[in-house]
Amino acid sequence: MSAVMTAAVMNQTARLTLEKRPVPAAGAGDVLVKVAYVGVCGSDMALFENGYIGDSVVTAPMVLGHEASGVVVALGGGVTSLAVGDRVALEPGVPCGACDFCREGLYNLCPEVFFWASLPATEGALQEYVRHPAAWCHRLPDSVSLLEGALIEPLSVGFHAVRQAGPGVGDRALVLGAGCVGLLTTLTLRAAGVRDVMVADLMPNRLELAEGLGGHPLDADGLDRLDKEVAAAPSAAPRYVFETAGNAVTMDRAISLCRPGGTVSFVGYTKSGRADLNVNLLIDKELTVRTVFRYRGCYPPAIAAVASGAIPADRVVSNVFPFDQAQAAIEHAIRAKANVTKCVIAVDPEWEIQA
Amino acid sequence: MSAVMTAAVMNQTARLTLEKRPVPAAGAGDVLVKVAYVGVCGSDMALFENGYIGDSVVTAPMVLGHEASGVVVALGGGVTSLAVGDRVALEPGVPCGACDFCREGLYNLCPEVFFWASLPATEGALQEYVRHPAAWCHRLPDSVSLLEGALIEPLSVGFHAVRQAGPGVGDRALVLGAGCVGLLTTLTLRAAGVRDVMVADLMPNRLELAEGLGGHPLDADGLDRLDKEVAAAPSAAPRYVFETAGNAVTMDRAISLCRPGGTVSFVGYTKSGRADLNVNLLIDKELTVRTVFRYRGCYPPAIAAVASGAIPADRVVSNVFPFDQAQAAIEHAIRAKANVTKCVIAVDPEWEIQA
Amino acid sequence: MSAVMTAAVMNQTARLTLEKRPVPAAGAGDVLVKVAYVGVCGSDMALFENGYIGDSVVTAPMVLGHEASGVVVALGGGVTSLAVGDRVALEPGVPCGACDFCREGLYNLCPEVFFWASLPATEGALQEYVRHPAAWCHRLPDSVSLLEGALIEPLSVGFHAVRQAGPGVGDRALVLGAGCVGLLTTLTLRAAGVRDVMVADLMPNRLELAEGLGGHPLDADGLDRLDKEVAAAPSAAPRYVFETAGNAVTMDRAISLCRPGGTVSFVGYTKSGRADLNVNLLIDKELTVRTVFRYRGCYPPAIAAVASGAIPADRVVSNVFPFDQAQAAIEHAIRAKANVTKCVIAVDPEWEIQA
Amino acid sequence: MSAVMTAAVMNQTARLTLEKRPVPAAGAGDVLVKVAYVGVCGSDMALFENGYIGDSVVTAPMVLGHEASGVVVALGGGVTSLAVGDRVALEPGVPCGACDFCREGLYNLCPEVFFWASLPATEGALQEYVRHPAAWCHRLPDSVSLLEGALIEPLSVGFHAVRQAGPGVGDRALVLGAGCVGLLTTLTLRAAGVRDVMVADLMPNRLELAEGLGGHPLDADGLDRLDKEVAAAPSAAPRYVFETAGNAVTMDRAISLCRPGGTVSFVGYTKSGRADLNVNLLIDKELTVRTVFRYRGCYPPAIAAVASGAIPADRVVSNVFPFDQAQAAIEHAIRAKANVTKCVIAVDPEWEIQA
Repeated sequence: MSAVMTAAVMNQTARLTLEKRPVPAAGAGDVLVKVAYVGVCGSDMALFENGYIGDSVVTAPMVLGHEASGVVVALGGGVTSLAVGDRVALEPGVPCGACDFCREGLYNLCPEVFFWASLPATEGALQEYVRHPAAWCHRLPDSVSLLEGALIEPLSVGFHAVRQAGPGVGDRALVLGAGCVGLLTTLTLRAAGVRDVMVADLMPNRLELAEGLGGHPLDADGLDRLDKEVAAAPSAAPRYVFETAGNAVTMDRAISLCRPGGTVSFVGYTKSGRADLNVNLLIDKELTVRTVFRYRGCYPPAIAAVASGAIPADRVVSNVFPFDQAQAAIEHAIRAKANVTKCVIAVDPEWEIQA
Repeated sequence: MSAVMTAAVMNQTARLTLEKRPVPAAGAGDVLVKVAYVGVCGSDMALFENGYIGDSVVTAPMVLGHEASGVVVALGGGVTSLAVGDRVALEPGVPCGACDFCREGLYNLCPEVFFWASLPATEGALQEYVRHPAAWCHRLPDSVSLLEGALIEPLSVGFHAVRQAGPGVGDRALVLGAGCVGLLTTLTLRAAGVRDVMVADLMPNRLELAEGLGGHPLDADGLDRLDKEVAAAPSAAPRYVFETAGNAVTMDRAISLCRPGGTVSFVGYTKSGRADLNVNLLIDKELTVRTVFRYRGCYPPAIAAVASGAIPADRVVSNVFPFDQAQAAIEHAIRAKANVTKCVIAVDPEWEIQA
Repeated sequence: MSAVMTAAVMNQTARLTLEKRPVPAAGAGDVLVKVAYVGVCGSDMALFENGYIGDSVVTAPMVLGHEASGVVVALGGGVTSLAVGDRVALEPGVPCGACDFCREGLYNLCPEVFFWASLPATEGALQEYVRHPAAWCHRLPDSVSLLEGALIEPLSVGFHAVRQAGPGVGDRALVLGAGCVGLLTTLTLRAAGVRDVMVADLMPNRLELAEGLGGHPLDADGLDRLDKEVAAAPSAAPRYVFETAGNAVTMDRAISLCRPGGTVSFVGYTKSGRADLNVNLLIDKELTVRTVFRYRGCYPPAIAAVASGAIPADRVVSNVFPFDQAQAAIEHAIRAKANVTKCVIAVDPEWEIQA
Repeated sequence: MSAVMTAAVMNQTARLTLEKRPVPAAGAGDVLVKVAYVGVCGSDMALFENGYIGDSVVTAPMVLGHEASGVVVALGGGVTSLAVGDRVALEPGVPCGACDFCREGLYNLCPEVFFWASLPATEGALQEYVRHPAAWCHRLPDSVSLLEGALIEPLSVGFHAVRQAGPGVGDRALVLGAGCVGLLTTLTLRAAGVRDVMVADLMPNRLELAEGLGGHPLDADGLDRLDKEVAAAPSAAPRYVFETAGNAVTMDRAISLCRPGGTVSFVGYTKSGRADLNVNLLIDKELTVRTVFRYRGCYPPAIAAVASGAIPADRVVSNVFPFDQAQAAIEHAIRAKANVTKCVIAVDPEWEIQA
């Protein structure tokens, strides 16, 4: 393999430059992966557009991207769990493995986690090769494409949301927001045997997509009708409501539409960071609120579910851009939000053909 | 409706007589249901063949059958939740609603429960009409047939087993025994997104049926191979094992094949009532054992799952007999165990045509 | 027993009149109870002061009070669980026992519940005799006084909050607000082996009381110090935070002080009904929010805990008024909030002497 | 510190020799601990007496002991969590931190765990100094003695049993067996606010001890009376039963005495490894069986509970032997089982005086 590779580097706000960088070496326990696909996430868009996210400001050259798949091309010392040629989905957060949170199994809450393209880390996946611990590279079975492999990351968010809430076969659920995470939550709920999965959004094209994935679409009028149904027969209201829109209004709606004793899951961040909520109604209905920060332990079962055909994750992909149009990909994701559910950048699409 | 009906009465061991009895009157809160289908359960077979079950001896004329569907033909006082003509699945156990267990929601453990054809109750469903509390008659949507309606009862057992164990999408499970409950457990696991669902049995025809329902069949050799896989890679072992065969050997096998930290569910009774188990291995693997006594709160979600097509419950039916061959139906179920997964008696099959 | 009794009737806002009313008759399943003590609750104060609570307006004469104890003086038909002379705590909410919520064991969410002095119900306990279903009268062992019996109701709120959150021996918890419910939550946490139980309030006298009950008092400076400790060592933060002050500011504080992955319980209503919350932090820390609407199944274990001495509930009583000063009692509870933790009205204190 | 130390080495079955060995060096992340106390556990006795345990045979010189406390005397590279002079309880199992079980927080099930004096590991704590990872040495607050520090290990077993079963304040529990683990389970239940904690054993002196620790003692007659009570009022039966005797008869008794819907915990191994159980009754009562393999995450809360006085763990110590009588200590523990609840060896008791 060549010693030099191309990386898409953000040296200034809203500008990616394809630069040559040395191919990293796989250390002990690592593998070197030739990157196939990288999905564009909301945090990538925010960092690209604003040069900061929350309180974190980009001050050094940065490589974006944390939703990645690829093919193992070299093994670091001591690696036996993978072989050269293995197709993998890369879990982008590597926890310390030793702190109190890791010891309890809550590794997504590890304060020492290294997470791609998440400040202070300026390393991401938008480059031809990445080095990653073998323990956090999950092998893809033949029936999972590399494109699907890059979707395991956002799928894991919806997957974790569903697993924490714990709906059962035959239960009824409501998903607020039909963006990428909303749709992947919908697919997971369908795979879990939930009937029916109502999906609410204001944009007709998203609702159409949700319906195609097995959701029962609700526009503004539909939500109002549901309001009346819930008022008339509270015990038939959805037991599980997932707020994925990151909006205070829909968070409040989640509270009013959930069955008493049910569970509301907050999956999306609000712009202001805050939300004014009807807490007295929350109490009167004795609801539980679960929240979702990334995921833990979701890659293996999510991959198994995609492999079996139960979750056709690639159906949420709206656009695929070649690597040399990485900048255009992110710009498109930002500008055409209404029509984009997931932009993916094909860093090396040739692998797919070989698979 | 005529004031006289036919009931299949067991006046002596192993003999059903079709007798005329007055049609019962629906009291306050009750409905009168024209029975459509009644499934033959293992407890019916035991009572029929032996005249007793466990410590309970039949001493009075008895009507067998507790897996029933039918059509509402009359409403008792105050009933508003159902209408004449509604097709219903009848939940056969009516708890007291007031004891400590009912108050906690554990109504299947109510010591005062009235349960059809379960001594000391000598009332069952093998008769043309039954009176039942409206609150325990569950309306079937149009997409659920009356034949499926009679299967909600045994399905609820597997459904309850799965819900208590709580597997998630993409998990791996093992079902020991491919009889009626084993197959319905398999269908529920499939509906819950579990991959893969291994099903073990010694009879090839049952394994074939299990495979047709989406299970991964394991014969004796397959189980031995699984043993070796589990020894080599314990973390890949099934997290959830369901023992439905009612056999001490398979209970022990459940312990040895379950993933450490996993859950073994005992669903089937053993003949002797006892089992000699490897408790030290149970402890070394820190397994949890869940047990399943009937079900609670399962009819509504089970019906929803059947209605949506997620659980094709009627595929476990191996035989349908007309009402006037009720005796032959039970005899067949007893004698041809290897080929019978579920015998159903069509007390009034004409309803199906109207549905 | 005389056929006429005295009841404290609210015929107009902020005015109780002692009126003569016929002693109620105990129907089938009921007992007649001579009331001993009745605690004054925040909802009593709101109804008294304003003539409404939330959207519910008092339009008919009303008897306040739902925290009651007393002595059984007559049995209705069929009652065998109690005897004349039994001292009881009366659970004020009688659910329907048949709806979906009751069937699941969530009887506190029954939409058909009859709950004393909770509109539209205008019946309460501030009268010499009350009729109540025997099933909802809990017998007090000898070691529980009738005064303590009246405290089982508010104790059950804190008890339910603790039971839902589920802290274990040796865990660390924080209670925000040292009013009656905050103190009873503190006592329950102490009984559950939680170390340490920090209790925050702005009023020094309440903090002193909290400290006397085994809490570790935190004033404003103490909370600020805790803020810094939590920022420095998140894994040592309290896993369980109970907001009992009904205040948006402390709800937000609960979010910032809770250990990542921990549980925040909202026990208190806010005045406006709403709260502006840092939901992004809630998500970043992946907290769970539990809410507490009354209680279910708490009377028996709460009584057992008081009987054993583990929960000295009567230590939260700040004032006892005689029945003929019922009006003064409620007025005092309203005006002297800073010094009142719980006002109790001794409807018939003579019983205590006999106990 | 001297470069040579004394270790109690088992070079042949049933014989310990005090040998000189070099003091180990603390590697990176380790601390060197001067051992204070080491408890004698059943597994130590089995290895000593028989030269094997289960399928594992002692083939090399071995140092027994895994219940240890001590004082940090040197820090390996990079250790900042502890300081020289810190008094610590040593958690004897060091998991790999990377396998699937560790990642899920089930570190006690790690197949790669290093656990003192547990074959194939032949290293134990019966020596003057031990090297141990700092991350698995838990600092003792001033209010916890070094003797109590050595008891945190067996306490953690009972602690884990209680935490997994999850009883609440005011619940009722039954402990079968009043040996060391039974008594420590009793103490934990008492600390958790459980009322009442019944403790059954056949030996009067153990029952007396159990009573002194707050348990309600039950001899054979007492158990028979409880049988009758449970038959008469199943809902008043103990919801939580802990089998700590490691006996098939008491396991069966646990099933028959537990409240329907309750939880039976198997904490003790049987001699044969097996138990013949009434599985049909287990199913009829829909019991859950939890099992306890060592513990995870229990040291910090257990130490907190001992520090607060809630769990007086040292009250289970029946004998303390000096280090040069290590052989006699183990022999006594084996021979005088009826009178020994816990033998502890004071490897260096002088530390206690300094503490």
